[in-house]
Amino acid sequence: MPKALAFDTFGTVVDWRTSIIAELETFGESHGVKADWPVLADSWRKGYLPAMDRVRRGELPWTKIDALHRMILDELMRDAGITSVSDADVEHLNRAWHRLDPWPDSVAGLTRLKERFIITTLSNGNFSLLTNMAKRAGLPWDCVISAELFHHYKPDPESYLGCADLLDVATGELMLVAAHPGDLRAARDAGLMTAYVTRPLEYGPNQRPHRFTDGEFDFTATDFLDLADQLGA
Amino acid sequence: MPKALAFDTFGTVVDWRTSIIAELETFGESHGVKADWPVLADSWRKGYLPAMDRVRRGELPWTKIDALHRMILDELMRDAGITSVSDADVEHLNRAWHRLDPWPDSVAGLTRLKERFIITTLSNGNFSLLTNMAKRAGLPWDCVISAELFHHYKPDPESYLGCADLLDVATGELMLVAAHPGDLRAARDAGLMTAYVTRPLEYGPNQRPHRFTDGEFDFTATDFLDLADQLGA
Repeated sequence: MPKALAFDTFGTVVDWRTSIIAELETFGESHGVKADWPVLADSWRKGYLPAMDRVRRGELPWTKIDALHRMILDELMRDAGITSVSDADVEHLNRAWHRLDPWPDSVAGLTRLKERFIITTLSNGNFSLLTNMAKRAGLPWDCVISAELFHHYKPDPESYLGCADLLDVATGELMLVAAHPGDLRAARDAGLMTAYVTRPLEYGPNQRPHRFTDGEFDFTATDFLDLADQLGA
Repeated sequence: MPKALAFDTFGTVVDWRTSIIAELETFGESHGVKADWPVLADSWRKGYLPAMDRVRRGELPWTKIDALHRMILDELMRDAGITSVSDADVEHLNRAWHRLDPWPDSVAGLTRLKERFIITTLSNGNFSLLTNMAKRAGLPWDCVISAELFHHYKPDPESYLGCADLLDVATGELMLVAAHPGDLRAARDAGLMTAYVTRPLEYGPNQRPHRFTDGEFDFTATDFLDLADQLGA
């Protein structure tokens, strides 16, 4: 049994896609602009990995996710011909990532897991984004830990090892909970325990199931309530 | 009005002296050793400033408070002739700083302030100490911020500036809440707002009042409920 649980957030704790589409639709209505908002939401998210990789490879200095999101958004807006919106309104839209809604089981599941374990974020989202998200959504973290604290984005090992060091637990006493096999594999390679949680709607109704082998992770759960059951919390 | 409140913890949020004396008395009873526990508690605390100053001056590499507390405790135990106790038991005692009780108004006051502001620790206590303390005592922080994240102990300006950067607020939008004028003066010099809270029993019944000039700080409060009243929370 672990002592502490570290949670990936985008997709694992919060349903970024539904939230971002809704924010884009509101944005479109209030500014009288039209676009294929689900496609734009997916493109916004898709731009995030290569942007982080530029930081990970050292092509960009350390840059918070808020700034990476804004770079991607500015490009998408140009491409969509949306040019008449004020900087303040674009910045408000960019902060939509601070206002993501949790999956229906997230708050109840975390509340149970908190009774037995230290629970923290371990996310590439910046510290203020995660703090604002938790405050708005009522996510009951014991603390907020972000890749920003280590200036190393996941899946760099420094992020997993730095999380264990801050919590003062051995790597084998820390379990990453995530809906993404790649994140979990990197955590396992750094010595962490791993729990895969299925989020079949993260990428929308046509999502292909993630591929991983049986027994590859320490736990596999359908949601946080199922994980709490399995961990006796 | 500030956007975020950062709280000093030892003495400001928690009553370290009463808690540490009680832990030392329990330790003495279970190991059959006697000492003047209030004096030992005060010496333990008194050793903390020069130990941190050695880190701040670069005589020691970055060292967590847990390790500084342990260095001081080992010396105090030697001086008191207490040598027959196992390392695990001394380490448990050292972790007494993770188990400090809050002042009677702390949880209720923080709960009110959290409704209106982002509330965080800004303490020289290490990250795990602050996380464990909050979990045990029910302190409802939005996030935990420690000098450990900046490898700069207060009153180094890097700690105050680093806190504002992580929360993504301007220094003038962040207010330090503390029971210690020196901490507040350093925060003010770094551009923060300041709130002094009186904790007349922090150092025991014979504590001399702290000296500061009228209007030196933005707010002066008798406890966190009074501060909440003044801030309209």
